Amino acid sequence: MRRYVYRGKILSLAVEDEHWEIVEHKDAVALLVSDPDRGVLFVEQYRPAIGRRTLEIPAGLIEEGESPEETALRELAEEAQLTGDLEKLAEFYVSPGFTDEKTHLFRVTNPRPASGTPDDDEDLTLRWRDPQEVLAESRAGRLAISASTLAGLLFALEEK
Amino acid sequence: MRRYVYRGKILSLAVEDEHWEIVEHKDAVALLVSDPDRGVLFVEQYRPAIGRRTLEIPAGLIEEGESPEETALRELAEEAQLTGDLEKLAEFYVSPGFTDEKTHLFRVTNPRPASGTPDDDEDLTLRWRDPQEVLAESRAGRLAISASTLAGLLFALEEK
Repeated sequence: MRRYVYRGKILSLAVEDEHWEIVEHKDAVALLVSDPDRGVLFVEQYRPAIGRRTLEIPAGLIEEGESPEETALRELAEEAQLTGDLEKLAEFYVSPGFTDEKTHLFRVTNPRPASGTPDDDEDLTLRWRDPQEVLAESRAGRLAISASTLAGLLFALEEK
Repeated sequence: MRRYVYRGKILSLAVEDEHWEIVEHKDAVALLVSDPDRGVLFVEQYRPAIGRRTLEIPAGLIEEGESPEETALRELAEEAQLTGDLEKLAEFYVSPGFTDEKTHLFRVTNPRPASGTPDDDEDLTLRWRDPQEVLAESRAGRLAISASTLAGLLFALEEK
């Protein structure tokens, strides 16, 4: 039995069997865009939840009625003004001990320009960086990355 | 300004600036134990948050006053009755759009037997599996894995 404590915009909080604290959250997509000369495409942004700027591969939440592929192409256009072909790399739960959020990770091949505008509440800066450098800086705690970014970095390094 | 909506055992929910829904959660560790003959060590368990069984590398939450390394050795003993030497592989936020949970991923080298007992509320089965197979089954959606498990799998495959 789930007793709901809060129902919000992107998440709801419930307590199951008066024991398990569970956050119901929309699923997400994340996108690996890499270029042999420029490295991997990242988005730098401030994240209120952690009070830090992060370097993350482009990502976004799946809205009602969207397929993961549709979200992927929408986010890629909005955040990076790109489109491309999608290859599914992985599917995982971000932290299944407390939340149902699942992320679909895609590789974008044949990237090409597309038009799109970021959401109003997003202040994003695009950066191309060497994946090995980002991995080393995040391991040392000097740079904050997300789970999908770590997975994207490892897939990018595997390509080489 | 964070307005708290719920304060619980493993997480608290706040709304920041009447806009951002934020889950404050303990940090975690995850452990890659691999063996040339048997593959990677996983824990199979039922996860109420997603209503499914998962296959995850050993993991656990950092308790007050513990260092990530202390948690790692405690969880390794409790979940797998093992100890070993730790090498830090990565540090990442599981989903920085809404939660501050950070995971420290370690590789365990020179694993050897240790004594420990699982938590009362954990029903765990240990499994050694081939990382390439687990990656393929999870990509196809037939098997549920966590973010730290995906990262662990990719580091394990990189070793080969």
